[in-house]
Amino acid sequence: MQTHKATRISIIVERMIEDGVISILEEFKATGYSIYKGSGKGEHGDHPTHRPSIVDDFAIVKIEVIISDPQKVQDITEQIHNRFFDYNPGVIYLHEVDVLRPQKF
Amino acid sequence: MQTHKATRISIIVERMIEDGVISILEEFKATGYSIYKGSGKGEHGDHPTHRPSIVDDFAIVKIEVIISDPQKVQDITEQIHNRFFDYNPGVIYLHEVDVLRPQKF
Amino acid sequence: MQTHKATRISIIVERMIEDGVISILEEFKATGYSIYKGSGKGEHGDHPTHRPSIVDDFAIVKIEVIISDPQKVQDITEQIHNRFFDYNPGVIYLHEVDVLRPQKF
Repeated sequence: MQTHKATRISIIVERMIEDGVISILEEFKATGYSIYKGSGKGEHGDHPTHRPSIVDDFAIVKIEVIISDPQKVQDITEQIHNRFFDYNPGVIYLHEVDVLRPQKF
Repeated sequence: MQTHKATRISIIVERMIEDGVISILEEFKATGYSIYKGSGKGEHGDHPTHRPSIVDDFAIVKIEVIISDPQKVQDITEQIHNRFFDYNPGVIYLHEVDVLRPQKF
Repeated sequence: MQTHKATRISIIVERMIEDGVISILEEFKATGYSIYKGSGKGEHGDHPTHRPSIVDDFAIVKIEVIISDPQKVQDITEQIHNRFFDYNPGVIYLHEVDVLRPQKF
């Protein structure tokens, strides 16, 4: 069984931003992603005055995408960060995974 | 606090294949797994003619299982790959985690 | 794009314990966490006589929190383990991730 290194990008955002994040993944031709609904608590973005002061619980989604090309990982992450994360709560984190079927990523 | 190395196997498949994947986990006596419903977009398997040509959105599950024995990790991954992944869309990926209570895995 | 090392703690427990785990996260002032409902199969805790002998399927939650301070990671993990995991089924596992916006963790 042969595996190949790739990066999983996890993006946790409020559901109102889900479509915007997905549109960036589509732009970069990410060939597969998955979306999970959840709840949670988070902090505001870097400009809290643009939003209500307290949002303890909110409906969130976690969007997961696996990408093998490091440049594409960086491009996608930067785009999502720059377009959405100045004004919105949310988290992006990355970690390395071993995938089967590398032609898919 | 002592932790121990183990491997998390993540299997993302359409829900119609969920039971098949679980039956393999049971065969190998995986002592615990968890299942999360989601949505997503994926590519077809290696034999696209066996399926409708476009399935943009489909109901998926992510099945997560943590295994400490490297041989068992490989056996489970190969079995799932060989039985289901030639003809179905889906993703298997692995990464190392640190677990408490190693006797559980 | 600069990323920073942090630890993701994943806690998979029955839903009746969700509030207890969250209260520990709040105690330690974890600034953000997310919660996903799922199903699954697990083993009992270390004291199986305190619970029914068979619980094949149960409603679970996975609680994910990202923490950058290693001491805080250890404190949270130990607290959750000590308060809940002697008498309940469940899994805690850790792995390193790269985060954007380190000031959030």
